[in-house]
Amino acid sequence: MARGAIGVDLGGSHVMAAVVDDAGEIHARVEHDITDHTPEVVIAMLTAAVKGAIDGSKLELAGIGIGSPGNIDPASGTIRWSPNFGWENVPLGQRVRDAFPKLPVFVGNDARCATLGEYVHGIGQGTANFVLLTLGTGIGGGIVAGGELILGAQMGGGEFGHHQIRPESGFVCTCGKVGCFEAQASGTGLIRHAFRVAPSFPRSSLLDVAREKLGSKAIRKAAQAGDLHGLAAWGAFCDDLALGLSNVIAFVNPEVIALGGGVSSAGDFLLERLRPSVDAKTVTVPRGTTRIVRATLGNDAGAVGAATMALRGGLVAQVAPPARLAVSGS
Amino acid sequence: MARGAIGVDLGGSHVMAAVVDDAGEIHARVEHDITDHTPEVVIAMLTAAVKGAIDGSKLELAGIGIGSPGNIDPASGTIRWSPNFGWENVPLGQRVRDAFPKLPVFVGNDARCATLGEYVHGIGQGTANFVLLTLGTGIGGGIVAGGELILGAQMGGGEFGHHQIRPESGFVCTCGKVGCFEAQASGTGLIRHAFRVAPSFPRSSLLDVAREKLGSKAIRKAAQAGDLHGLAAWGAFCDDLALGLSNVIAFVNPEVIALGGGVSSAGDFLLERLRPSVDAKTVTVPRGTTRIVRATLGNDAGAVGAATMALRGGLVAQVAPPARLAVSGS
Repeated sequence: MARGAIGVDLGGSHVMAAVVDDAGEIHARVEHDITDHTPEVVIAMLTAAVKGAIDGSKLELAGIGIGSPGNIDPASGTIRWSPNFGWENVPLGQRVRDAFPKLPVFVGNDARCATLGEYVHGIGQGTANFVLLTLGTGIGGGIVAGGELILGAQMGGGEFGHHQIRPESGFVCTCGKVGCFEAQASGTGLIRHAFRVAPSFPRSSLLDVAREKLGSKAIRKAAQAGDLHGLAAWGAFCDDLALGLSNVIAFVNPEVIALGGGVSSAGDFLLERLRPSVDAKTVTVPRGTTRIVRATLGNDAGAVGAATMALRGGLVAQVAPPARLAVSGS
Repeated sequence: MARGAIGVDLGGSHVMAAVVDDAGEIHARVEHDITDHTPEVVIAMLTAAVKGAIDGSKLELAGIGIGSPGNIDPASGTIRWSPNFGWENVPLGQRVRDAFPKLPVFVGNDARCATLGEYVHGIGQGTANFVLLTLGTGIGGGIVAGGELILGAQMGGGEFGHHQIRPESGFVCTCGKVGCFEAQASGTGLIRHAFRVAPSFPRSSLLDVAREKLGSKAIRKAAQAGDLHGLAAWGAFCDDLALGLSNVIAFVNPEVIALGGGVSSAGDFLLERLRPSVDAKTVTVPRGTTRIVRATLGNDAGAVGAATMALRGGLVAQVAPPARLAVSGS
């Protein structure tokens, strides 16, 4: 019997539990809507999805991996805090262990899980230094350096969405700071740029839709069609994305930067605009040596990565600390 | 006989070779001025210093470690490029091997060597996530994540001195970009801030010295004495340093950030100004959880770290890649 794990992608509006084999292939998926963010409701929907996935699994299951928003204690699987859900100290890992006592349960940040998925089974394969950025409502992602995910002292490594790139002229971020990378260069960042440049395009109808219906896709499509308002917003957005990516390169010098999320579906229209702009801001390594590409696992990255986490026993390989810190011979 | 290595700190104006034991203690040092940056002259001064150190050593020497400016191929020890020396493809490692055929020779970037030194034998001891910033002419330093130095795909990891924090209003950096962290928050950054705010202080005599004699220390001392011009420059400098440090935290969430270099000798006058400012910009981990402290090895960090590199066989521990990348059980 092939080996695998249950990989769970817990989002704000739905939860998906997938049966994933150790080659990263999804064999089955069970999805439930989440209509209420109280821990009880979310955990009930999550365990129902996991139960459905286990029932439909034909693999030898090594465990359950859950990718969740928020900052998570890796030992217990407790969500320390999650702005998305408004949670503090929710013992998600323990509750899932209570429901499935026969399987090991691992909980990790959703963006780090997606990074692990893309690294082990997606576009990051074969590299040792890799960065994923998911451009959506914010910028999620993670950093792999020297073959391992960066988790940081409090599991806050890879939160580069909140590094400030426009501290003076930027948009106000959801975190309250000005000009965070994600305020400027996420999908919602593109929408903000469209509003900012709107006064220069008084005849544009680009923003003539109900505010809640305005998506980044319409702006990108307008830019692709040559609409001047769309092009101005798109250009400003790409400049800010390039600025942040060049900062990523200065910090960790990845071999590959993979872009996921809705905006990345623009493909070459995005990448060909982006690459020379990143190159122009790259001074620490030879220009053009960082490959900027689309992520390949799409919305499955989180579930595949969560299952990978369960299969390897955690977000990072479990290497004994003394072997890593020792000075040889001492 | 105690075990040790020769650690070499190669700078723009001098080279220092030290006899360092495996506890990081320096037993002897030999220093030579460097008056000419041609590879022949620099290598001759370096090998003379190494020879002097070896002759004075009473340790069992495991090798020679050299911390050099520039981007360095770790296998050969060739300096691929060094803006400081104006070098390209200088086979420093091979030349030193030719001179000392009995000892293994390792060459690493000087800032990464200093980071390794502070991590293994200085203020970074006992942590697994650590960042060193040396505030001098530029900002050198390095990142330790999960117990290992970040080197990156082309040895460009940790070059955060060139991440842009003020891309609109900042100073022009030596690299040509605007508002790089090191243009704003190095020792020379402090001097630049003093010039920028000078028009607001027409009676100030702070800048009434020959330009080449103006140092960051005079500005800091003036600020400490309550001089308004000095205080304005110092405040702008500290704000930019805090901005960059909060970006460091967003990227890698270190447990400790250590500050070295001339400006760091301000001690609490710097740190007590800095900490609340960093806290105010920290949203990804609990405020106050990143300890911001002075580095402890001072100018010795580079030589101690270079010797440590020789003792451990490279800048990062030599762990077999399959063990680090494997998904357990696959």
